[in-house]
Amino acid sequence: MPALLNTADPDFKAGFAAMLAAKREDADDVGAAVADIIDEVRARGDAALVALTARFDRTDLTAETLRFSETEIDAACARVDPAERAALELAAGRIRAYHARQMPEDALWTDASGAQLGWRWTPVTAAGLYVPGGQASYPSSVLMNAIPARVAGVERLVVCVPTPGGAVNPLVLLACRLAGVDEVWRIGGAQAIAAMAHGTQTMRPVDKITGPGNAYVAAAKRQVFGRVGIDSIAGPSEVLVIAEGAQNPEWLALDLLAQAEHDADAQAILMTPDQGLARAVAAEVERILPQLPRAAIAGASWQAHGTIIITRDLAEAAALSNRIAPEHLELCVDDAEGLAAQIRHAGAIFLGAWTPEATGDYVSGPNHVLPTARSARFSSGLSVLDFLKRSTLSRLTPAALAAIGPAAVTLAMSEGLPAHARSVQARLDDLPPLPRP
Amino acid sequence: MPALLNTADPDFKAGFAAMLAAKREDADDVGAAVADIIDEVRARGDAALVALTARFDRTDLTAETLRFSETEIDAACARVDPAERAALELAAGRIRAYHARQMPEDALWTDASGAQLGWRWTPVTAAGLYVPGGQASYPSSVLMNAIPARVAGVERLVVCVPTPGGAVNPLVLLACRLAGVDEVWRIGGAQAIAAMAHGTQTMRPVDKITGPGNAYVAAAKRQVFGRVGIDSIAGPSEVLVIAEGAQNPEWLALDLLAQAEHDADAQAILMTPDQGLARAVAAEVERILPQLPRAAIAGASWQAHGTIIITRDLAEAAALSNRIAPEHLELCVDDAEGLAAQIRHAGAIFLGAWTPEATGDYVSGPNHVLPTARSARFSSGLSVLDFLKRSTLSRLTPAALAAIGPAAVTLAMSEGLPAHARSVQARLDDLPPLPRP
Repeated sequence: MPALLNTADPDFKAGFAAMLAAKREDADDVGAAVADIIDEVRARGDAALVALTARFDRTDLTAETLRFSETEIDAACARVDPAERAALELAAGRIRAYHARQMPEDALWTDASGAQLGWRWTPVTAAGLYVPGGQASYPSSVLMNAIPARVAGVERLVVCVPTPGGAVNPLVLLACRLAGVDEVWRIGGAQAIAAMAHGTQTMRPVDKITGPGNAYVAAAKRQVFGRVGIDSIAGPSEVLVIAEGAQNPEWLALDLLAQAEHDADAQAILMTPDQGLARAVAAEVERILPQLPRAAIAGASWQAHGTIIITRDLAEAAALSNRIAPEHLELCVDDAEGLAAQIRHAGAIFLGAWTPEATGDYVSGPNHVLPTARSARFSSGLSVLDFLKRSTLSRLTPAALAAIGPAAVTLAMSEGLPAHARSVQARLDDLPPLPRP
Repeated sequence: MPALLNTADPDFKAGFAAMLAAKREDADDVGAAVADIIDEVRARGDAALVALTARFDRTDLTAETLRFSETEIDAACARVDPAERAALELAAGRIRAYHARQMPEDALWTDASGAQLGWRWTPVTAAGLYVPGGQASYPSSVLMNAIPARVAGVERLVVCVPTPGGAVNPLVLLACRLAGVDEVWRIGGAQAIAAMAHGTQTMRPVDKITGPGNAYVAAAKRQVFGRVGIDSIAGPSEVLVIAEGAQNPEWLALDLLAQAEHDADAQAILMTPDQGLARAVAAEVERILPQLPRAAIAGASWQAHGTIIITRDLAEAAALSNRIAPEHLELCVDDAEGLAAQIRHAGAIFLGAWTPEATGDYVSGPNHVLPTARSARFSSGLSVLDFLKRSTLSRLTPAALAAIGPAAVTLAMSEGLPAHARSVQARLDDLPPLPRP
């Protein structure tokens, strides 16, 4: 049975706080092992990658075969079923169109003092994308990471994907092709992160690394952060479905189970003022669960983390949602836009019951890399901005310096930085004759 | 003597690579001590803050006096010299005007499938700003951190500033007032970061923490990251001045020394194709250095990290600048805009010799919290975006789901996530009659 909370109960506050505070993931401390792997890759380069790949992925490579050849990628792409190719192409096109709208604009203006001010966006030169191997090797994640980088104008886009036991997912390679990835390497784990951050004899380093991974990959990303940029470290996934009225309980149950089937740490929450709907959805979950191929995983998630919360009304549901700050938020209510206006913290909002969360995982267009574990309070999903950075611009004229320079001199002196003050004062002392304002 | 490199020399490549790789900062490993402090604050709250402040800042406080009262802030503000107040007000106004232009726009559109897509920006609810005490207690940093948060719409803005031995900088309190800070606490170090991240009996926790600090503060920010958002961890500051032609060598020397006086780890670099100018600037540095109140610090920085690089031409200087990715870049050349167009990685660009870097530290308007240690390759200075996050929006109509849903079903099945597929298929099975396209 999932947890059942009712905001009318006297112990609701404690139960809700316990749910918020619950850790759904055991953090393995693999920091020392990862530091050793990074040192080994820095010291020995390709030779370390070959040795570590033989050890961890049971795959024998050479410095020459660490990277997929174009011929190998072509051959894998040719093996993809036409319906799957068409679906991936539809997804790629829609993700590209959505992210193209995110491109920010440069700015330059002249203010009242005569100072020219502004900023300019430029792309990261080289980005690396980690793609897990095995069961969690998702072509959709390749699209969601690589396409924003390409839209941003990243020049060189590298993918690392392990091939444990030699297993290659042709859809992943096709997704790389469709997204315009330049290099695909068959390496994984902390060694792949180390190679992308530091480079080897055959791989040039990148400037930013994104993409999901296991505890070793996450620890490696933390350790190379600073030398390169990284995206956020993803935790277990979660969905909150807020529902009322004449909803189809089967649809809502499937949305909860779609989240639960990700892994046993995933969390699915239903919030509704309608006790009858809550009972109906819970019954549908129990009915459908045994039919699912991933019933064991989905069942474990639903038992351990599944939660149904009865609220007084939708306004209360919105307020509780803002405390959860869910990664995915489905609003299956009559006035979804009205309810959305009360939402302050959520990674992705799905409006209305015709917008199941799974469409956002694949084809709607917005990114599916989203803030987990309440981090939507302070962070956003992946976007083109993750592959861009901004240089601020300023140009003072002599008149502008005359207007604002003396304040800089005053502040520099008050902060005990006299050379700062002198660098401005020397110019003020040499001002050309200025037109009277 | 600073390092002198010439791109025409056969050993330039090695010398430049060594400069890029040089670590200018010893990272003290204070992680374990900081973890203990955080645990203590979490366990005992205000009592821990009182005890730790007595120990580290030699200041006796109670739970009631951890926070500055409005009366205390009023009294401190009244002590500020009118010229300093006017300078701070000018700076605050200009920083506010610049950052107001950074506010991003929401978006919502309907695509060809009938899907409504878009995003919405919302502010972080509560932000905390760390302000170092003692010598490096800079009112300008209060403005640079607090004003973007206020412009972004942050509801509650908290400042922590230690008062070692009871010393209070009235300008810091005035800067808090001018920037609209809601709460000012006289605590510092890792205990202040812990309090802002976890809250105490008297301090409610925040969602995001920004601001500079020593090794303890930096380690604490790393450790609470995830529970709250943080800004980047700042390293030692640097400036690159690219110059040519009839420049005033004294001005350029002062700009280099303004950087060098920050601390002995700071780095000042001059790059020019003009050997005569290089010699003149170097001579001016030597002439001015002994006159500076902070001659010991600036001299140590210039000796250890100061570098003059002679390039073949400005295009080569731009290419080398892109490898350095400087925090501050001054372009003291005839066609500064033309040269800026060749710059790909820089935190802040100062165009023309009438725009000394120090104006950017105080009054120009762009932020002075900028990426250090080559991280301008992948990150940007502080902005309103650091206090905002984006929720993506999607609403599918039955017709849109009919158009794109089948591709989601195909991809979910190919990724082995059948409940995802069923959540879409269940709706496709129940589609109402659709108008023919």
